[in-house]
Amino acid sequence: MSTKAIGKTVWAIAEGFIPKESTGPGPEMTSHETACILNTSDQDAKVEIWIFFEDREPSGPYRLTVPARRTRHIRFNNLDNPEPVPKGENYASVITSNVPVVVQHTRLDSRQSENALITTMAYAV
Amino acid sequence: MSTKAIGKTVWAIAEGFIPKESTGPGPEMTSHETACILNTSDQDAKVEIWIFFEDREPSGPYRLTVPARRTRHIRFNNLDNPEPVPKGENYASVITSNVPVVVQHTRLDSRQSENALITTMAYAV
Amino acid sequence: MSTKAIGKTVWAIAEGFIPKESTGPGPEMTSHETACILNTSDQDAKVEIWIFFEDREPSGPYRLTVPARRTRHIRFNNLDNPEPVPKGENYASVITSNVPVVVQHTRLDSRQSENALITTMAYAV
Amino acid sequence: MSTKAIGKTVWAIAEGFIPKESTGPGPEMTSHETACILNTSDQDAKVEIWIFFEDREPSGPYRLTVPARRTRHIRFNNLDNPEPVPKGENYASVITSNVPVVVQHTRLDSRQSENALITTMAYAV
Repeated sequence: MSTKAIGKTVWAIAEGFIPKESTGPGPEMTSHETACILNTSDQDAKVEIWIFFEDREPSGPYRLTVPARRTRHIRFNNLDNPEPVPKGENYASVITSNVPVVVQHTRLDSRQSENALITTMAYAV
Repeated sequence: MSTKAIGKTVWAIAEGFIPKESTGPGPEMTSHETACILNTSDQDAKVEIWIFFEDREPSGPYRLTVPARRTRHIRFNNLDNPEPVPKGENYASVITSNVPVVVQHTRLDSRQSENALITTMAYAV
Repeated sequence: MSTKAIGKTVWAIAEGFIPKESTGPGPEMTSHETACILNTSDQDAKVEIWIFFEDREPSGPYRLTVPARRTRHIRFNNLDNPEPVPKGENYASVITSNVPVVVQHTRLDSRQSENALITTMAYAV
Repeated sequence: MSTKAIGKTVWAIAEGFIPKESTGPGPEMTSHETACILNTSDQDAKVEIWIFFEDREPSGPYRLTVPARRTRHIRFNNLDNPEPVPKGENYASVITSNVPVVVQHTRLDSRQSENALITTMAYAV
């Protein structure tokens, strides 16, 4: 099993928007934005997320751990300390880690009855 | 809070197409293309956008500012100086900035009753 | 206007699949795969595309020109020399150019009544 | 025909989720996740995939071959040795090869009646 660290320690996602509305059974079909983080290393990753806005100072850090040899798919909807990420408002995010990780961004948008999905690798600094 | 500049000063998006038709309440559900720009630095970013076409010379520069430590999600639909970006026509874009930024491309396509979404990081030169 | 060359001379797209079925008015809503190519340079780009398959030797080169300071959104559906790209079959592609270009991949999938869209920057070698 | 190797030997995909439900005729419309692998070289690629989870040790290696000058679009749904990839559970993957390859990630999600599609280039280490 590969236990080498893969990735980078700073990532950026310029797009961010959690729709206010959802259709279908939650939480699976609730509109959400996710940062999928993969830590292939043998060391727990201490991750910090900063949220950037259009009209005010950044919010953060949101702190979480991705254990060694694990992935965590973090819903921005669930971040609440120091404050919830607002719905229906444009934002962006910067994700840092003490060990290299890989970050991929996903949104499930269920504002309309059929869900729409987007994904992209985050920008590796 | 991270106030270091992140990203690059030149970005390219080879895909561009604003559908003529939309379904659902505007402006949220109006078909649109967006360049999401994140400026993590402590300096306002002076941004210029050039639009490239299939059959004529490029149009631009479209000038805008992304303030320090802010994100702006720019709809190509709203650019109008020196001229509006045409709908229903293929285009591409180059985005430059005097300070490093991160650029992500998104389209919401509501030509049909259920919306479709795409996103990708722009190409960092 | 920026007339500097941007990008790379070799790009790869590992995903390729043109659905056999379409719904809605063509050609706009016909299921298709596109390579969006941007040539910001002052020199016409001589582009060659090779198609790779799961079960036989690659097909090509498909030759085309992207003029200086222009974009072209090439539908794989329309390539026919040396042979059409088969529908309903997995493929991949390599795109080379004599001057640097930027390549982005898009699919519109209208097999079902509401269209689905995907996009990603191609892999820059 | 280009027979030079293109790409990298280690790739990571941080997002992974095979929906439990599907709508429409299988296997084409069955919800699935795919790693599209392109081997442009003149040598068969020996590929290994490791699956990472949120709550247990990684699973693998899943071994497969992508022949010289071929592409293979691998559905994670079909991997079954050493064990099937669970449905309805978040995962991530690392893909290694003895020769350089290009890897692109795709999901077709048919939980609802209209399919949703996502794609992105994997992260090239």
